[in-house]
Amino acid sequence: MQIWRVNTREQTLTREPVPESWKQLGGRGLLARIMVDELPPACDPLGPNNKLIFAPGLLTGHRLSSCDRLSVGGKSPLTGGVKESNAGGRTGLHMATLGMKALILEERPSQPGWWVLHLNKEGARFDPADDLAGLGVYAAAPKLLARYGDKCAISLIGPGGEMKLTGAGIQNVDKDKTPSRINARGGLGAVLGSKGIKAIVFDMSGCDKPAIADPPAWQAAQKAYNKALMGHPQTQSYADYGTAAMTRMTNAFGAIPTRSFSDGQFEGADKISGEAMRELLLQRGGASETTHACMAGCTIRCSNVFGGADGEEIVSPVEYETIGLMGSNLGIDSLDTIARLNWEVNDLGLDSIEIGAALGVAAQAGLLAFGDGEGALELVREIRSGSALGRALGNGAAMMGKLYGVERVPVVKGQALSAYDPRAIKGTGVTYATTPQGADHTCGLTIRAKVDHLDPQGQVEISRNAQMSMAGYDTLGACVFAGFGFAAAPETIRDLLNAKYGWNVSGNILQELGRETIMLEREFNRRAGFTAVDDRLPEWMTREPLPPHNAVFDVPEAELDGIWE
Amino acid sequence: MQIWRVNTREQTLTREPVPESWKQLGGRGLLARIMVDELPPACDPLGPNNKLIFAPGLLTGHRLSSCDRLSVGGKSPLTGGVKESNAGGRTGLHMATLGMKALILEERPSQPGWWVLHLNKEGARFDPADDLAGLGVYAAAPKLLARYGDKCAISLIGPGGEMKLTGAGIQNVDKDKTPSRINARGGLGAVLGSKGIKAIVFDMSGCDKPAIADPPAWQAAQKAYNKALMGHPQTQSYADYGTAAMTRMTNAFGAIPTRSFSDGQFEGADKISGEAMRELLLQRGGASETTHACMAGCTIRCSNVFGGADGEEIVSPVEYETIGLMGSNLGIDSLDTIARLNWEVNDLGLDSIEIGAALGVAAQAGLLAFGDGEGALELVREIRSGSALGRALGNGAAMMGKLYGVERVPVVKGQALSAYDPRAIKGTGVTYATTPQGADHTCGLTIRAKVDHLDPQGQVEISRNAQMSMAGYDTLGACVFAGFGFAAAPETIRDLLNAKYGWNVSGNILQELGRETIMLEREFNRRAGFTAVDDRLPEWMTREPLPPHNAVFDVPEAELDGIWE
Repeated sequence: MQIWRVNTREQTLTREPVPESWKQLGGRGLLARIMVDELPPACDPLGPNNKLIFAPGLLTGHRLSSCDRLSVGGKSPLTGGVKESNAGGRTGLHMATLGMKALILEERPSQPGWWVLHLNKEGARFDPADDLAGLGVYAAAPKLLARYGDKCAISLIGPGGEMKLTGAGIQNVDKDKTPSRINARGGLGAVLGSKGIKAIVFDMSGCDKPAIADPPAWQAAQKAYNKALMGHPQTQSYADYGTAAMTRMTNAFGAIPTRSFSDGQFEGADKISGEAMRELLLQRGGASETTHACMAGCTIRCSNVFGGADGEEIVSPVEYETIGLMGSNLGIDSLDTIARLNWEVNDLGLDSIEIGAALGVAAQAGLLAFGDGEGALELVREIRSGSALGRALGNGAAMMGKLYGVERVPVVKGQALSAYDPRAIKGTGVTYATTPQGADHTCGLTIRAKVDHLDPQGQVEISRNAQMSMAGYDTLGACVFAGFGFAAAPETIRDLLNAKYGWNVSGNILQELGRETIMLEREFNRRAGFTAVDDRLPEWMTREPLPPHNAVFDVPEAELDGIWE
Repeated sequence: MQIWRVNTREQTLTREPVPESWKQLGGRGLLARIMVDELPPACDPLGPNNKLIFAPGLLTGHRLSSCDRLSVGGKSPLTGGVKESNAGGRTGLHMATLGMKALILEERPSQPGWWVLHLNKEGARFDPADDLAGLGVYAAAPKLLARYGDKCAISLIGPGGEMKLTGAGIQNVDKDKTPSRINARGGLGAVLGSKGIKAIVFDMSGCDKPAIADPPAWQAAQKAYNKALMGHPQTQSYADYGTAAMTRMTNAFGAIPTRSFSDGQFEGADKISGEAMRELLLQRGGASETTHACMAGCTIRCSNVFGGADGEEIVSPVEYETIGLMGSNLGIDSLDTIARLNWEVNDLGLDSIEIGAALGVAAQAGLLAFGDGEGALELVREIRSGSALGRALGNGAAMMGKLYGVERVPVVKGQALSAYDPRAIKGTGVTYATTPQGADHTCGLTIRAKVDHLDPQGQVEISRNAQMSMAGYDTLGACVFAGFGFAAAPETIRDLLNAKYGWNVSGNILQELGRETIMLEREFNRRAGFTAVDDRLPEWMTREPLPPHNAVFDVPEAELDGIWE
């Protein structure tokens, strides 16, 4: 494995040996290590001194179920702090097969213009891409696949990233050539845009599979992991309903974001539930698929293809977070409308959580009526125009709140909350507040913990454990749902790592990796100017009761501040 | 003296004795003390927990030349930190005569609506003011004076404050009934707007003059001070040219903001100089006045009335900062255009520095051609419409930069730089970077120091001394130009304070007050989450050379961090 370092000003590549202290990390943990080691913490996130880093996880590269994920990170233009966002798709597999421990993009071009960065075993090439400028990802991806070959992996940005909007992500082509596996959060698409790169093509052709130190041990561990994963009841639930299975559960807890986080239950929740979606898609047939894998080899296949009444695909996939933020959060109870909104934001290359939250703030500001799906679609299309309103929406909820003087803005560190209201799922509120990433359920969702989610007691510990596990999975390159298998057979993590690398790590490696990662991230944020004041939910959530439980967020600040002590 | 505390939710007033530790402070220093003592540092600046505090200076209330100023402060919605902004006009005199050591506005109404807060010796009254909503200050002030009496003092907001724009200030009626003495910086108008108050009326009628402990000693000190002030050569220069005298000087130093801080010399500088303005106004006559006092008793009279060719007043006054930010910074070389821009932002109740800087960013984003005065006027009028673009402009340069992905944004702590490019006047750059207030020349302008302004050596000490003096003057309620007199006869500060209060302070009191004030402000900012990372100029100013000297800002960060050690 090597570090591939690309200077986007000089358009040069150097391939360097992996420093010793980077070897035992991958994915999110490696990003944090690299950022602490070499990224100026006070730099302008869209300036020449920020770096955009791509890293496959420690287990990525072997089509191990749900374990081929890609982490992308750098200093976030949305939060101003450390940022890692991971995604499925093909990119992780291609990077690992190309022998890339990490790809580090540095500097930025001295002239305007757009480029495709092409990477294969021969090295790097910059191809002019001005013809792709302004294209949505659904138009750009087929052109890129036609130009560079159907089997390549592609990471690309849409108009949102080109406009350097802080709601912009980076989209990865999946095994079915759809560019909808998105490193969504924190504005990393804007960072790629600031470096003049419309797309990166990874072509692993001609490369050998990544090495495994002890193949029989690997196979044994893989078998044990697969068995544990397949035996877990949630595996079937996610195959059937996808993440949309969360809709009814979150609604039942009184924690589904409703009309811009003003209510925790949505009267239309059943209509936008996973159950309703499955029924609708089975009935429609055509392009619709109720279960679908985002990466080769995945046995869970939580994804889906959402087809219209005419049998044509509207978008793939529709996930719970989008249902929560662009559905109930906007008072919208139509899955078709949610799917169309989802397509629009995907095509623009934007984070549906951030944009859904921004639309909720827009509704509070009187720019949109709750429940008005066509109005929401019109506002999303406004983003494409580049108007001030469109840009503000594309920059996310925090900017919309500042622009319109709206107080009830659901953000932490400037990043929008996911679809779990923290007043009713307080452990997740602790995660939102204290994770170095800004509000993000994937940093430690606690909804499955068997506790009273309304009780502030003990939530810090639950969040801490969830945060360490998630940071560990993100370092392995494992999907959160791989956790169903790993939780049932935790020794397989140790066995897989030892088999692959010839290491001798302990059974506690997941938590060790997780803690190390979070400590590095906190160190980066500290140097970037973050303090305990940043580890807070929005002030209004501590005084405004959330129906139906009329809960406020009341985990004591001293407990939040002590979470890592 | 008493503390007047108004609850804007309950519409109640309590008058409290002054706590012992507040007695020796006034103006800016008292604001800082109150903020540290009782303002939750992490609060939402536009939420119910922020407080808006008005405090006259220690010397305010006696028509002492240039010493009747008013400080207003609270947590800034622009910077997120401590904020003090001071102004002339009548308000300081009325407050002191009413016996108000400070007025503290707390909470906010539970219902929308606008109010006039009327304060006189009887107490407080809230009068409905929905009929004034949306009115510019030039339309609202005459109605208020008609309603409450010509001799009242009035502090009011324009549409900018009503919209809670972070570029909004608070305007005070001057001795000629013009509402253009503005507590301009840091968005305090938005804080007043968040509390539902369109205007505060101060009526000192029936009150005795503020007490003086030793009248003969006061008269002697006043005489010595006046003599020193009148004898200073700058006093005549400011009477003749006003602050616009700085135009040629700053241009000569290569430090005048030109085309959004991309150049330090402006080819049209002579056309917008103080000399040109004086000649124009003398020639025009009519309403024009080349010298004008903003407060009763001022002997400097640096202000002016800018009349048009038709003899009618366009605006009063035109100050250097406006010439720099709305003239050269926009490539505009017409004083008439600058005066019209100035009227528009005044009427909206906005800070001309912040809006000028925002327009410069707009020009970088392609929304305006440099030199296009009509285009600039059109953009400023857009603010009144409440559109997204208008609101963004009204929120200032930092938001415009984020919205349009512009890197070259001239702000520190989110607040726009004044009209001295810090690459060419490096001591002022140290002030911009390290003052707790955000970039602001009034916190320590160094242009008159007899040093090489391009040399980074020694600038920290120059800035430190300037910052302490300025914080001291702001605590006294003294205009920066009072400093001409006080610098020549520093013992008069001691003598005036001892005569007024029966104190026994030392000759070093100005610096003592200044240092104490700054330490309190830094403490508030520390608790609000500020770190050394916030004490920096924009990163691009450290690498982008400024013509004609091709200077970058290169005062070492370690020196900035050590300024108060």
